[in-house]
Amino acid sequence: MTTPLFDRIALLGIGLIGSSLALAIKRSNLASHIAIYTRRQETLDRAAKLELGDSYHKEVADAVAGAELVIFCAPLGANTALAQASAPALAEGAIVSDVGSCKRSVIDDVTPHLPDHALLVPAHPVAGTEHSGPDAGFAELFDGRWCILTPEVGTNQTAVDRVSNLWQQVGSNVEIMDADHHDQVLAITSHLPHLIAYTIVETATDLETDLQKEVVKFSAGGFRDFTRIAASDPTMWRDVFLNNQDAVLEVLGRFTEDLTALQRAIRRGDAEKLHDSFTRTQALHRSVIAAKQQA
Amino acid sequence: MTTPLFDRIALLGIGLIGSSLALAIKRSNLASHIAIYTRRQETLDRAAKLELGDSYHKEVADAVAGAELVIFCAPLGANTALAQASAPALAEGAIVSDVGSCKRSVIDDVTPHLPDHALLVPAHPVAGTEHSGPDAGFAELFDGRWCILTPEVGTNQTAVDRVSNLWQQVGSNVEIMDADHHDQVLAITSHLPHLIAYTIVETATDLETDLQKEVVKFSAGGFRDFTRIAASDPTMWRDVFLNNQDAVLEVLGRFTEDLTALQRAIRRGDAEKLHDSFTRTQALHRSVIAAKQQA
Repeated sequence: MTTPLFDRIALLGIGLIGSSLALAIKRSNLASHIAIYTRRQETLDRAAKLELGDSYHKEVADAVAGAELVIFCAPLGANTALAQASAPALAEGAIVSDVGSCKRSVIDDVTPHLPDHALLVPAHPVAGTEHSGPDAGFAELFDGRWCILTPEVGTNQTAVDRVSNLWQQVGSNVEIMDADHHDQVLAITSHLPHLIAYTIVETATDLETDLQKEVVKFSAGGFRDFTRIAASDPTMWRDVFLNNQDAVLEVLGRFTEDLTALQRAIRRGDAEKLHDSFTRTQALHRSVIAAKQQA
Repeated sequence: MTTPLFDRIALLGIGLIGSSLALAIKRSNLASHIAIYTRRQETLDRAAKLELGDSYHKEVADAVAGAELVIFCAPLGANTALAQASAPALAEGAIVSDVGSCKRSVIDDVTPHLPDHALLVPAHPVAGTEHSGPDAGFAELFDGRWCILTPEVGTNQTAVDRVSNLWQQVGSNVEIMDADHHDQVLAITSHLPHLIAYTIVETATDLETDLQKEVVKFSAGGFRDFTRIAASDPTMWRDVFLNNQDAVLEVLGRFTEDLTALQRAIRRGDAEKLHDSFTRTQALHRSVIAAKQQA
């Protein structure tokens, strides 16, 4: 058996991503010890029952103590509190990372609280399902998916390499990117699609009861794909939109312009404009398939 | 072997739906003869090569002659021309049907051209994929899916029953509905989702090249589901929006209101509003799963 990459890894938060990471780390024996902290006792008990880790902690400091790598796996809004609670307990030279969907806010929230000897390497595994909680995790979640690291310029290269290696060992392809650029790209590929899906399902939810029943019944026409996306964890997504405001609002502005143009084309019966728009979009679908990002 | 439901069925148009229907009719031996017409010679040759029918025709009248059932399977914009070309050749008491995604416009476009002895029974199989053309067809497309019939009040019941029976035999569950109500329900479950998906992919298509490449690369975050929907046939969808203007614009108005409210919540950092909206949408996803309309 090869030597694990890390002695002790602390996972703070054990939802879909945290539990999947725990299982993937175990699958390939990447840590000697997995310490788990989560805020709710019920969830911590569940994680223990599922045998996701080696130790379970009600206090952040107890989980963090002696860890070579600490990974924040809670919704983004918890990062400041987790950083504050971790800081005094962090081992000399400990690496701090996370799995959040926005990256600039993680750097802004966490950095001020870390001791100088700690090394921050933010990470975002671009993977997920519409399910949440420790029972939703599975070891294969990251297989073949991207994990984007956004270390600040000047970050200790060994720390970056070790986090990169971990994500590769759990099955991901790693990309290094500037945090602001990450937030701009993900605003389009992930945050806007989720916002739109939540909106369209909310629009349907506000319909009178009879019509809503029929919407459910005939949802195979396209709607059901949106309901799946819009079933994702509300707290996680609330925090995404609160932590990537500027990029989301910018791309939402572009989207609204394009939607207004199509709305006008429908109202005016502008067949040519509609056909042009619907033809142009096919090329991008072919690119997605070619990039093997199709499910 | 049981007696086929129909002697001769004419399919006018042989794209995804027409070719799937031909294969499903053959699978269960529901017609003695399938006559195929389509506008383009190349497509007609391809249909023959794929052995989708029993005879292949360059003229509508030749396909329709002697058919007990004529099904329009072309984009909605072709219905008027197909009705005009079919009318003189329709056998006494022939049933005319279609597979269009809007139903009021079919009745309005086709009825004025039909002889009094013909019987119109509009139909909409709520099934599809993002692929188009005769090669995209498969016999199982309609299995377990809804087919909505929208006959006008007073339509010959035998004709309705025969069309209903055909769709049940190709695997569908049949629902009878008023045409206007159909158009309202489908505007929400299908037309709006497609419009939104086309829009978001168009927004991404307009990005500068470098950013667009990254959008493709990291599309697993939600975006790729939209690219798939937005890869559907442009002509078919252009015609849907031109033929269900009022219902689509109405539901688009509601959607825009809801999106504006979420946009404001993001701008103001209104955590509570975001969380409330994202929580409410989960219930509808559970209903969709319970209704077994999830893929």
